[in-house]
Order: sequence, then C-alpha cells, then structure tokens
Amino acid sequence: LHAVDFRLSYADCDPAGIVYFAAYYRWLERTYSEWTWMMGLGVDRMRPLWGAWTVSKDSGCTYHVPGVLFDHLWCVMRCGRIGTTSSTMAFDIIRSRDEVLVAEGRITLVFLDDSGRPVPVPEAMRIALTGL
Amino acid sequence: LHAVDFRLSYADCDPAGIVYFAAYYRWLERTYSEWTWMMGLGVDRMRPLWGAWTVSKDSGCTYHVPGVLFDHLWCVMRCGRIGTTSSTMAFDIIRSRDEVLVAEGRITLVFLDDSGRPVPVPEAMRIALTGL
Amino acid sequence: LHAVDFRLSYADCDPAGIVYFAAYYRWLERTYSEWTWMMGLGVDRMRPLWGAWTVSKDSGCTYHVPGVLFDHLWCVMRCGRIGTTSSTMAFDIIRSRDEVLVAEGRITLVFLDDSGRPVPVPEAMRIALTGL
Amino acid sequence: LHAVDFRLSYADCDPAGIVYFAAYYRWLERTYSEWTWMMGLGVDRMRPLWGAWTVSKDSGCTYHVPGVLFDHLWCVMRCGRIGTTSSTMAFDIIRSRDEVLVAEGRITLVFLDDSGRPVPVPEAMRIALTGL
Repeated sequence: LHAVDFRLSYADCDPAGIVYFAAYYRWLERTYSEWTWMMGLGVDRMRPLWGAWTVSKDSGCTYHVPGVLFDHLWCVMRCGRIGTTSSTMAFDIIRSRDEVLVAEGRITLVFLDDSGRPVPVPEAMRIALTGL
Repeated sequence: LHAVDFRLSYADCDPAGIVYFAAYYRWLERTYSEWTWMMGLGVDRMRPLWGAWTVSKDSGCTYHVPGVLFDHLWCVMRCGRIGTTSSTMAFDIIRSRDEVLVAEGRITLVFLDDSGRPVPVPEAMRIALTGL
Repeated sequence: LHAVDFRLSYADCDPAGIVYFAAYYRWLERTYSEWTWMMGLGVDRMRPLWGAWTVSKDSGCTYHVPGVLFDHLWCVMRCGRIGTTSSTMAFDIIRSRDEVLVAEGRITLVFLDDSGRPVPVPEAMRIALTGL
Repeated sequence: LHAVDFRLSYADCDPAGIVYFAAYYRWLERTYSEWTWMMGLGVDRMRPLWGAWTVSKDSGCTYHVPGVLFDHLWCVMRCGRIGTTSSTMAFDIIRSRDEVLVAEGRITLVFLDDSGRPVPVPEAMRIALTGL
C-alpha cells in the first residue's frame, strides 16, 4: 500500500553497533501515517467525517537479520487483517542492496467513537486497505 | 525481578495527547538493561565470561488503557519463557495512582556466540531469571 | 529548582558506545515538564489562567565528558535568564559517582497568546523561577 | 553539502500538536552522518586512516516557525566554522511548500586521537567541508 525508505543512522543504532530494537516502530508509524495522510484518512479528517478515531491496541516486531549502521532499508506496508472494529497493518523491513527481509512489524488499531467505545472500521478505511 | 518508574512527558506523547505507541519499548529496555547491569549480566560481562551475547528476536506490546501526559507509571519485569537458546521477558506497565494495568510488553532475546550461532541460555542468566 | 535522575541505557547511546548527542534534550524536557506539573504551571493550567502558552525558541547543549552506558546521571534545572516574553532554563547534567559535570543544556521558551503573539512572562512563572 | 527530506509524523510531534523541540536534532545527525558515509568519511574509515574520531562538543537549535504534523521539510547542511581541532556544521530546516525557514541547527564536533586528546581536523574532512 505504501513504502518509506531510510538509511540507518546513529539515531537508530545502539552500543551493540546494530539497530536499536525499538527504532523500527517509529518507521512503521511513519509509513502508516504518511499513507493515511496521502489517502485523506488522517485522524483530522476521520473524526469530522465518521466520528471515529484510532488508538493502538497492539504492536509487534520480529527481527530476522540485524540492521547495521548505514544500511539502506525499505519499510513496506500491506493490509494485515481487518476485524469488526480494528485493523492490522503488516510491514516488511527490507534491505535494499539484496532484498533480504530484515524484520517484520505489525500495528493493530482499534476505531473508537468520541465516548471511547469501539465502532466498526469506517468503510473508506476498509476500501483503502483492501481495495474491495 | 526489577521495576523502573517514570512520569509520561512530552517526549513520550504524541499529538493525540496520549502516549506514543512506541514509547513504552524504550522503558521495557531500560528496565531489562538496568536489571542486567545490577545482576552483573550486562553484555560487557556476558561476552568474556560465557562467550555469549544477545540480539532481539521479537518484541511486542498490548495497550489496554491510553497513558496520558504526566501519568506516573511503573514498568515491572518478570520472567516470561525460557527456551533453549532464547529468553522472553514480560513487562507490566502499571499506573501508580490506581494500579491499573496500562499495557503489557515483551522482549525475546536469543543468545549467540561470536560467529552468530545460537547457543544455550547461559546458566547464570537462567538462574537469575527463574531463581532455580 | 528541580532534578531528575536516570541511568544511561541502550536507548540513550549510539554505536560509538557513548551517549547519543540528542539524548540529553529529552531529559532536559522531562525535568522542566515535571517541574511545571509539580508547580501547577503546566500548559493545561497556564492557558485557562493566563491565556498564555509556550513554544520553544532555542535550545542547546555543551558536552564536557562523554556519558557512558549505565552511567547514573542527574539533570539539575535552574533559572537561566528571564526576559520580557521569554524564559531560559539552564540544566547541569552531573555524573552521580563523582559529581563531574558531564554536560550543560538550556531551553528558551517564549510565551504566546492564542493568536500567537508574544506576551509577558506570567507573574506566577516568574515567581516560581526566581523566587522573587 | 547535503540535504535530507522528511515528513513530520507522530514520532516527531508532541501533545501541543507541533514538532517536539528535540526531534530536529535526530534529523541534523541523519543529514551529517549520511554525508560522511557518502564521502567515505565515516568514523569507521576515519579511524584507521587518520587515527581520529569525533565526539560532539556542542549542539543547538533555534526555532522560527513551529513545524506541524505532516509538514514536509528539508534539512540542508552547510559548513559552519572550521577551527583547529573542531568543525561546526550548520543546518537549515526548510518547509517545502513555501521555502520558509522553520529552524536552524548546528553541531560542533571535536576530533580526538585514541587517547582522547584533540587533534587537527583531518585534511580530507577540511577539504570535503570547504571545497578548498
């Protein structure tokens, strides 16, 4: 659905000389947020149009190969699973030079109304995620 | 096994006015790392003594209640699961004022030798984690 | 005026094995924000009471001694300079074990009204910062 | 000398709805580090070739206009000042849509030998920075 590329820098790495385990989460969010912005599905739009906003319900990351300082990576987002009131985005972190899968991430968001109760995933979001 | 307390600050929160979903991961790592340091099990010790070091294999977090700016929280670590070559630490993020469980996190580390092959969890680490 | 202590963790350090140069800024902000919260001077209070809020105008940090993984540090805040519409907080980062001055930081905030024009530093803030 | 572009995301912004004051520092470092990597002047190269490495001596940022969620920005690096044993990089943070100068940053690095004593700025670095 969307992809963001970046080069690992000192900001992302830790004294072990490899990527800090939490650094990818920020790139997952950047990829998702930029996609919502491009699709006109940012929270600023979603709230007036559908009365819905989102909070994180779950996130996770599995690390296959340690990212190393100055590696150039892609964060590629696809639709994971769409439930009744939540959607999961899945992300592959891929190393550019050899297309190795470095890590896999996921974020699950739940849709809430203004009183904080879960509501169905807005139709526009469902279509944007699945193309159906 | 160990606990660290902190107050949510602007550094941890995002424009939604609640905790940024990735912010807890840094607190999980702080709690674990400080524990290894206190137990003499830091990577700087582990490598010369057992020829083993660790990389992250998996991490995750489930969010129950949104943390709000200035909430005072505890990050409490306990042993999750110990496998042959990996160990999982489990973390509860607890709000001080009412002991509500705000979030649950986990980090799985795999132990490697200098050539990058998985090795058994060092005995001292196993004892420190399980008390057995 | 206020102090926060912390131990440098993987989250704060970079592949050079020492503190990441930007890591202290988050601790400066934590120290200042916690102080505003304790004094009842948080933006949530300031805005309804005085119609003023703050944005950062300038920040800086001078590094004297590299912080090392697991160093225990204090971030100590004092009043820097109070101008007509801005105030500067000064911070000393001090290593606990020998009281060495590791770094010095500063943050300058400007006070704005709802239309974004600079306004005089609220009297309560001035008193809290200077004791006068 | 080099420029990096990025879009402000939740990771960069705080509950005030604007950029977190410390967020730019990570972009300054990304711009500088990527430049050193492109020029073959990364610390990994510098140390074996010239026996020199760098630590941060000072950093700072002046904020002119608050960055807002989803703003697309450029971080443009130029040579600030070159001293005997240190060099300062200057950075302009520019908003793409109207080329407004959002913020100005700077990082001063000092060059050290293996015993931690300041050494002259390596000739290759001086040439790369000044073109002379």
